[in-house]
Amino acid sequence: MNVLVLSDDHETVGQWRAALEHIDPQICLVREGEVPGSTIVAALVDQPVRGRLAALPHLHVLFSMMAGVDALLDDPTLPPIPLVRLVTHDTVALMREYVYYHVVRSRRRFYTIEEDQRRRRWNLGAPSSSPSSCGVSVLGLGRLGLPSAIMLRDLGYRVAGWSRTPKEVAGIRSFYGPVGLQELLPTTNILVCLLPLTIETEGLLRADLFNELPFGASIINAGRGQCLNMDDLIAALDSGQISHATLDVFPMEPLPSNSTLWSHAGVTVTPHIAAEPTPDVFVSRLSRDLRKALRGDVLTDIVDRRAGY
Amino acid sequence: MNVLVLSDDHETVGQWRAALEHIDPQICLVREGEVPGSTIVAALVDQPVRGRLAALPHLHVLFSMMAGVDALLDDPTLPPIPLVRLVTHDTVALMREYVYYHVVRSRRRFYTIEEDQRRRRWNLGAPSSSPSSCGVSVLGLGRLGLPSAIMLRDLGYRVAGWSRTPKEVAGIRSFYGPVGLQELLPTTNILVCLLPLTIETEGLLRADLFNELPFGASIINAGRGQCLNMDDLIAALDSGQISHATLDVFPMEPLPSNSTLWSHAGVTVTPHIAAEPTPDVFVSRLSRDLRKALRGDVLTDIVDRRAGY
Repeated sequence: MNVLVLSDDHETVGQWRAALEHIDPQICLVREGEVPGSTIVAALVDQPVRGRLAALPHLHVLFSMMAGVDALLDDPTLPPIPLVRLVTHDTVALMREYVYYHVVRSRRRFYTIEEDQRRRRWNLGAPSSSPSSCGVSVLGLGRLGLPSAIMLRDLGYRVAGWSRTPKEVAGIRSFYGPVGLQELLPTTNILVCLLPLTIETEGLLRADLFNELPFGASIINAGRGQCLNMDDLIAALDSGQISHATLDVFPMEPLPSNSTLWSHAGVTVTPHIAAEPTPDVFVSRLSRDLRKALRGDVLTDIVDRRAGY
Repeated sequence: MNVLVLSDDHETVGQWRAALEHIDPQICLVREGEVPGSTIVAALVDQPVRGRLAALPHLHVLFSMMAGVDALLDDPTLPPIPLVRLVTHDTVALMREYVYYHVVRSRRRFYTIEEDQRRRRWNLGAPSSSPSSCGVSVLGLGRLGLPSAIMLRDLGYRVAGWSRTPKEVAGIRSFYGPVGLQELLPTTNILVCLLPLTIETEGLLRADLFNELPFGASIINAGRGQCLNMDDLIAALDSGQISHATLDVFPMEPLPSNSTLWSHAGVTVTPHIAAEPTPDVFVSRLSRDLRKALRGDVLTDIVDRRAGY
C-alpha cells in the first residue's frame, strides 16, 4: 500500500519507515514521482498541499501529522475525502507534560535559576508559593487542552478553561465565548493557549487581552503561532505586564535566526516539540487508520472542515 | 511564647515573623540574647547548634527547618527533648513537583533546548520518547520520596524505589538494602536521590554505583549533598557514563562561586530550593506543634535519633 508523504522533515520520515518495517511492512511511504499516482491510497502531510493531491484518483484518506490543520483547509483543491488528525495517545501525554512542566517553570521562576547558574549566583529568590495560589487558564479544551487542564487540577492548581462552546468539567471553572474570556482573565496568573487557528482565534492573544491579566502574568503558547500578536507580546513583556512567555509555535517555523525572540530575557523558545509523537506509536496509529479507511470503517479524529479543526 | 531562632537566613525569618502576626501573634521568634533564656520554650534551627541550647532550662521541643537532621544529631549536647522535622504538606507537594519537573527535563533533554535558544538554534533533536520507556528509581521512600515515586508512577513512568527496610507500593518495584540497590541500577535511566544523610548513605553515589547504571543515565540529587561523591560524579559526566546531573544540595552551601559545578555543561545547579515551604504553611504548622508540645500531646514527624532521620 503506497502512502504519499509530503514533508520536508526527512529525518522523521526515515524514523517512520524504520518503525513500519516491523509494525506494518505492507505500508510503503513514497515521495512524489516515485510510483504511479494511481497506486497511491492515502497521503500523509505536514504542510499545505496546494493542489498536489488533485491528480491522485484512488486517494481514500488524508492524514495530517499536525494538530493544527488551518493551512491545509485554506486549499480549495483539497480532495473531499476524510481528513484525519493523527493525535495519538502519546501526543496527549507529551502535551500535558509539556504544559505542566512550563507551568511549574513559570510559577516557580525556574528560568531565573538557570540564569543564576550561568552567573554563579546562589540566589534563593522570592518565597515559594503553592500551586493552589496559582490560577492557570487553559484556552482550548479539546483533545490536548482538556487532559492538560485535568492534570493541572489534579496537581493542586486553580484551573479554569475556555472553549468555543460550553463545557463542564469537575473542579475546573469553565468559560466560553468572548464574554467568558473577559471574565476569566483577571484571575489568570498563567495563560496556556492550546487553541486551533481559526478566524476567531487568529491574533486573539493581543494587547487588550494582555491588559486584562494581572500584572506580571505568564503566557504559554503551544497552540498555533498566529493566535498570538508578537509585537503586542514584546511590548507587554517590556512593560512588565507579562513577566514571561514560553513559545513552542511561531507564525514562521523554523523561527528565523534573526528573530528578537531568541534573545529576549522574558521569552523561552522551544522548537515546536511540545507533543511530537514517538515513531512507533505514530505508525501504529497510521496503520490502524489506513486499514480502517480502506475497509470503509468509521474513523476518529476527523476534521470538521466547517469548524476549521 | 518565645521561640529561639538559630538561622542566618534573615530574609526567611522575617517572612515567618510577618506570617505569625496574623496566624498566631502570641508566638515571638527571638534571637540569642534578646530575652532571658528561662523564657524560651522552643527552638527552631536550620544549622548545627553546638551546645547553644544546653543552657535553656524550659525548652519543650526542638524544631528543625530542614528535612535532613544529620548535622544536628552529631551534637552530643543536644537536649533530650522531642526533635521535630517540620515537613509540611506543601513541602511534600513542592518536592514531588521539583522531582517530576527535573525528571521530565532530563528525559526530554530540555536543557539542550535552553542551550539551543542561547545559540539561536532551531534543533528538533532526538525523536521523542514516552514516559513508559523511562525507568526512574527513587532512593529513599520516606515522607518526600514516596509521594514523588507515586506521582511519577501515576504519570506513566516505570518507577522503582529503594529504601533501608522493605516497602510495598502498588505499581512500584521496591528494593531494599545493599543487594537491592545492585539489582535496581541496571534498569535505571534516571536516579533520584532523596535519602537522609546517615553513615550508610554518606558517599553512596560514587563511581562503582555510577558504573552499574546504563550508559548515559541521569542523576537528580535533592537529598543531601554528602550522599554524592562530587569527584566521582565529575569523572562520570566527563566520560559520558552520566549524561546529566541535577543538584539541589551540596556538601557546602551556598555552593562556592569558584566551584566547577556552576559551569559544567552536564550539571544543573539549583540553590536548595526543591521544597522550601511557604511562610504561611510553615508557621501554621509551627504554631500547631508548639501548642501540642506545651500541652504534652503526641507530636508527628519526630526524629528517630538512633536511625538518624
